[in-house]
Amino acid sequence: MDTLTLNLGARSYPIHIGSDILSTLGQLLKQQNFLTGRVGVITDSHVGKHYRNPVTNILTAEGFEPVVIEIPAGEEHKNLAWLTFLYDKLVEGRIERNSPLIALGGGVIGDLTGFAAATFRRGVPFIQIPTTLLAQVDASVGGKTAVNHPAGKNLIGAFYQPRMVLVDVAVLKTLPKREFVSGIAEVIKYGVILSPELFGLLEEELKVLLSVNPALLTSVVKTCCQLKALVVEEDETEGDYRAILNFGHTMGHAIESATSYKSFLHGEAVALGMVFATHLSQQRGLCRPAVRDRVVRLIKQAGLPIDIPQDLAQEHLRIGIEADKKVTAGKVKFVCLEDIGKTRFEFLSAAEIVGHLYQSAS
Amino acid sequence: MDTLTLNLGARSYPIHIGSDILSTLGQLLKQQNFLTGRVGVITDSHVGKHYRNPVTNILTAEGFEPVVIEIPAGEEHKNLAWLTFLYDKLVEGRIERNSPLIALGGGVIGDLTGFAAATFRRGVPFIQIPTTLLAQVDASVGGKTAVNHPAGKNLIGAFYQPRMVLVDVAVLKTLPKREFVSGIAEVIKYGVILSPELFGLLEEELKVLLSVNPALLTSVVKTCCQLKALVVEEDETEGDYRAILNFGHTMGHAIESATSYKSFLHGEAVALGMVFATHLSQQRGLCRPAVRDRVVRLIKQAGLPIDIPQDLAQEHLRIGIEADKKVTAGKVKFVCLEDIGKTRFEFLSAAEIVGHLYQSAS
Repeated sequence: MDTLTLNLGARSYPIHIGSDILSTLGQLLKQQNFLTGRVGVITDSHVGKHYRNPVTNILTAEGFEPVVIEIPAGEEHKNLAWLTFLYDKLVEGRIERNSPLIALGGGVIGDLTGFAAATFRRGVPFIQIPTTLLAQVDASVGGKTAVNHPAGKNLIGAFYQPRMVLVDVAVLKTLPKREFVSGIAEVIKYGVILSPELFGLLEEELKVLLSVNPALLTSVVKTCCQLKALVVEEDETEGDYRAILNFGHTMGHAIESATSYKSFLHGEAVALGMVFATHLSQQRGLCRPAVRDRVVRLIKQAGLPIDIPQDLAQEHLRIGIEADKKVTAGKVKFVCLEDIGKTRFEFLSAAEIVGHLYQSAS
Repeated sequence: MDTLTLNLGARSYPIHIGSDILSTLGQLLKQQNFLTGRVGVITDSHVGKHYRNPVTNILTAEGFEPVVIEIPAGEEHKNLAWLTFLYDKLVEGRIERNSPLIALGGGVIGDLTGFAAATFRRGVPFIQIPTTLLAQVDASVGGKTAVNHPAGKNLIGAFYQPRMVLVDVAVLKTLPKREFVSGIAEVIKYGVILSPELFGLLEEELKVLLSVNPALLTSVVKTCCQLKALVVEEDETEGDYRAILNFGHTMGHAIESATSYKSFLHGEAVALGMVFATHLSQQRGLCRPAVRDRVVRLIKQAGLPIDIPQDLAQEHLRIGIEADKKVTAGKVKFVCLEDIGKTRFEFLSAAEIVGHLYQSAS
């Protein structure tokens, strides 16, 4: 088991990464000085099927009293109505101010549980056990928590750091292939924006990675967490620099919103958004066509979509971009690409952004 | 105009206190480097009647674009449903990440707006203009924000500091007498727990204070804000010491909850809670009867209630206490009194606390 530390002063926390390490959960909680009382375990109907019982047994064996709360799987449940349901269940389960809440699931469960932890009794301890590749490399590190609003993704949320993250790549064996590939999109993102080395490794080892190889996965997930940790340590609440992590996300979010979160998984939408952002960057003369081609090729080879559906109304995408949390004075801080590992911000209006749409599907 | 500073490192903020200083709002916002774009002004139907137009004019005159959102007056609207309504209106009003939200009202508006500011787009700047005595001396200082849940008051919330607080005691002229007196309860609390000087002053000058004298009010409100600032500076997120501010609140909240927030104003419930806590302290041998008598006398002379209604079921109060956010391992950190200006914590079960109930009405 490898352990990284996200250094944020008093809010620092460990990220444990390995294969088949779920069984250490109870001991790790004790190492963090949690009392052996109630522990909320929030999971979804898919993940719960596989890990609800094992996790309950691990916790009970160490003397904890798990209170399991299940949310139906799917991004469409990451909203205020299900948050309210979760609050009700936390009250019912008599979760106290010092009772940890464990998010056992993907990004939806992590975001929803994290926001509930940030706000229930004005803050209870929060533990992340991400069970999707996407959540392992992205959502579980950095303290962003949120629910969606009809007007925009993650529009309601808080910065709230977990006390501990436990990343077990062995759980990815039970992840549906499409979701695993969706997670690869965020892995590729780290290579594109921050690390030519990671990007090169992905180009070479993509097939091995897609075979869910535990050793390579452990190493790749660790690299992604390290890269993200460096960004978050420099800019915890996205004053400026952290926004580079939004590469591919401005258009990605707009696509998710315009399709009511139903047509694409988050990583798929981000893949489309990255291809779009790379095309836009090349069209605006910021990066060479060869850079664009490398990015598009890797995304395509991973089995991710690269063409934004023609029937998506430009108008809907524009509205989606305008609802972006990062809009200031009508401009979006759009992450452009200059080279593999090198980005720059451009302040663009939603109209300017969608103006690049029809050209990008080439 | 006097200005205090709440010192919390990067989250420090000024508290401006005076009489007839509302007109300086626009200039103060500019001094805080807010851009002259949209400003959310959240108020309630009562306060809006008096101050909606003046505040709108003051902001417009300085080039801001106020977006006024009105919530019906009353504690029963400080809930998740009205929070959702508020989020919808913020989206509709195109409130951006840098647009300040101004809470123009009492504690309900301050708590609800503060929680919305803490969570909308993961945090937008928050300004407090408290218009009740209670909010001026208590709710507006210290960064506690929340909404109620059927299972307990302020059960959902966050610590989120405002960027600025503007306290204009002249607005108390339009405050209904009963609400003004309710605020006196929190003023008395500061004397009881932290300052024999303030307590003595209140004993001597109560009548002048009750006449809404601007000079005395400015001085008393300033003293209360200073006392609270010292507590919050020492313990921002209520790790330990800050809990002394809950004096009278454990039973006070239980009474509010058991009466569905309908029979008593917050300060009235706190008055009942303070009388109860003082009796409990005396019965447990922690303070002398003379201390108890001074506290009860001042509360009574202020026109506040001192007898918990006999028809309130002990069972309901016990459940209300158990739902307290501060319950740990089944015990409440109950604030007891040793002397005027001197408190101590006792860890008591809800049953132990309500066990003192029938004796306290004497």
